[in-house]
Amino acid sequence: MTAHLFERVALIGLGLIGSSLSHAMRRAGLARSIVGHAQSEKTRDTALRLGLVASVYASAAEAVEQADLVILCTPIGAYAPIARSMAPALKTGAIVTDVGSVKGSVAREVGPCIPAGVHFIPGHPIAGTEHSGPHAGFAELFDGRWCILTPSNAADPVAVARLKAFWLALGSHVEIMDAEHHDLVLAITSHVPHLIAYNIVNTARHLERVTDSEVIKFSAGGFRDFTRIAASDPIMWRDVFLNNKEAVLEMLGRFTEDLTALQRAIRFGEGATLHQLFIEARATRRSIIEAGQDTAAPDFGRHAGGKPSGT
Amino acid sequence: MTAHLFERVALIGLGLIGSSLSHAMRRAGLARSIVGHAQSEKTRDTALRLGLVASVYASAAEAVEQADLVILCTPIGAYAPIARSMAPALKTGAIVTDVGSVKGSVAREVGPCIPAGVHFIPGHPIAGTEHSGPHAGFAELFDGRWCILTPSNAADPVAVARLKAFWLALGSHVEIMDAEHHDLVLAITSHVPHLIAYNIVNTARHLERVTDSEVIKFSAGGFRDFTRIAASDPIMWRDVFLNNKEAVLEMLGRFTEDLTALQRAIRFGEGATLHQLFIEARATRRSIIEAGQDTAAPDFGRHAGGKPSGT
Repeated sequence: MTAHLFERVALIGLGLIGSSLSHAMRRAGLARSIVGHAQSEKTRDTALRLGLVASVYASAAEAVEQADLVILCTPIGAYAPIARSMAPALKTGAIVTDVGSVKGSVAREVGPCIPAGVHFIPGHPIAGTEHSGPHAGFAELFDGRWCILTPSNAADPVAVARLKAFWLALGSHVEIMDAEHHDLVLAITSHVPHLIAYNIVNTARHLERVTDSEVIKFSAGGFRDFTRIAASDPIMWRDVFLNNKEAVLEMLGRFTEDLTALQRAIRFGEGATLHQLFIEARATRRSIIEAGQDTAAPDFGRHAGGKPSGT
Repeated sequence: MTAHLFERVALIGLGLIGSSLSHAMRRAGLARSIVGHAQSEKTRDTALRLGLVASVYASAAEAVEQADLVILCTPIGAYAPIARSMAPALKTGAIVTDVGSVKGSVAREVGPCIPAGVHFIPGHPIAGTEHSGPHAGFAELFDGRWCILTPSNAADPVAVARLKAFWLALGSHVEIMDAEHHDLVLAITSHVPHLIAYNIVNTARHLERVTDSEVIKFSAGGFRDFTRIAASDPIMWRDVFLNNKEAVLEMLGRFTEDLTALQRAIRFGEGATLHQLFIEARATRRSIIEAGQDTAAPDFGRHAGGKPSGT
C-alpha cells in the first residue's frame, strides 16, 4: 500500500487543467480526497457528476479548509480576489500552488495574501489543449511534459521537494527556475506563438479580396495549424498578455525585427538566405521530437479526410 | 471493369506529392501505367523499389514520351528547364499539369514552353505534410482536401473537365479560379503562415537569455505547432517565396499592421480588446473543423507523452 502524498487536495477552478489534475491524481493515487471550487454552478454540477471531486463548494474558502495542498487553476486574473478570500481558511503547513502561465505577477499579487506558516510555491505545467472546461480534462495531459516551479528564495525546501514529487508522480518532468526567467522563456515558447496565431486568424478574417470561406476551404496549407492554438480559452489568454506584458513586448520586438529582415530577403529575391534559414528551422523540429515534446507522425498523425492514414 | 482515366501518367518529381499521387492513382485505378522522372539516382532507385512507378528515367523527356498526363511535382524553381527539355517529347493531346504552390509564375514561365496541341492546366492540391521524399507519400493525402486548377481563358474545357475528374477520383474536391487570385488566397492561408513559423523558430534560436534547450523542453506551450510546418522542404519553400513575392509582401504587410495594433493593446493593457479578438478567433477554428479541413481531437489527437490519450 502506497501512502497518499496528500490527504486532501483542493482544486480551485475545474476547467481543462483542474479536471486533468483530478484524473491524473486519481490515476496515481496521490490524494486521499479531492475537493474543489468553481465559480459557476454548472461547472460544479458537472465536476460532481464526472466524479472529479468528492465535494464541491461555491466558495474557495470552504474548499481549502483542511486541505494540505491547494492548487489555483483559474485564469490568473481571478487569483488575487480568490487568494484574499481563502487566506483565513488555509491550514497551517499547507502548500498553495498554481498552474498559471505567468509567474512573476502571481508571486507579486498572490504571495502577500498567503499567511505565515503556509507554503506558497508557484508552478506551471507546460501542457494543455485547445479545449476548455471540466469535460476537457484527461489523466495523460501531463505525461512527459515539463512542469516549472518558481519558489522564492525564502521557500521551504521540504515543501518544494514535496510539490516536486507530486508533479513527478503525475507523469511530468520538473524544472525549478526563478519567476522572471520563466516569464521570458514562456514569452517565446508560448505567449508570442499564441499572439501570432490569434493575429493571423484576425488578419485572414478581414481581407477584402479573400473570402472567409476561401480561408477555411484552403486552410490545410498551413493556416489551420495556427487556428488550433488560437482556439484556446480567451479569458486565460487575455490574462496572460496583461500579466506578462514586458517579456511579451520584448520577444515580440525580436520577432518583428527578424520578420522585417525576412521580408527584405523576399523583396530582393535572396534565395540563398531563405534556403539557409529554412534548413536551420528543420533542426529545431528534430530536437523537439527527440526530446519527446512532439510526435513525428506526418501532420501530427491527423487522419486524411477523416479516415485513418495509410502511414 | 472501369476504364482507366489515363493510359500513361508521367510523374516528373517523386517526392512527397509525386509518391502520394502514385499511391492514390493506384488505389483508384486511374492509370494503366505510371512512369516517372527524378533527378537523383537514389530517388529513382527508391521509387522503383517502392513500386511507385513501372519505369523511371533520368531525363524528363524520356519519361513524358507517350504519356497522356504529365504532372510536374518538383520544386517550382526547376519547372522552366524541365519544361523546355521535355517539350519536344510531349504527345499531341496530352495534358500537362503541376502541383506547385504558386500559379501565376508557373503560367508565365512554363506556359510558353508547352507546344501547340498539348493542354497546359496548372493545378495545386492543398495538401501536404512536413515530411519530404519518395518514402513520405501515402494514398490518403488528398482525401477531402481541395485541389485548385487555374486554367487560362484559352484552355480546352474538355481537358479541364478530364483533369478535374482525375482529382475528384483521387479523393479531392476541386475548385477553379484564376492564377492571380490563387496566389493571393494561398499567400494568407499557406505562404505567410509558413514564413511566420520559420521566423519564430529563427527568433527563438538566437535569443541570448533563453537557451535552445529551454525552447525545446518547453515547446509544448505552443511553439512546437509552428515547428511542424517550419520542417517542410526548404527548397520548395524558397521557391514559393521567390515566385509569389508580391502577394506574400502584401499579406505580410497586413499581418504586421494587425500585429502592431495588438502589440499596442498589450502595452496599454486593453483587456477587452484582446478578449474580443480571441473570442472571434475561436469561430474560425470551428468553421475549419466543420468544413472537414481539420480534426477536433484535442492537440490534433497527439498522444500525451507518447502513450495513447484517454479521450
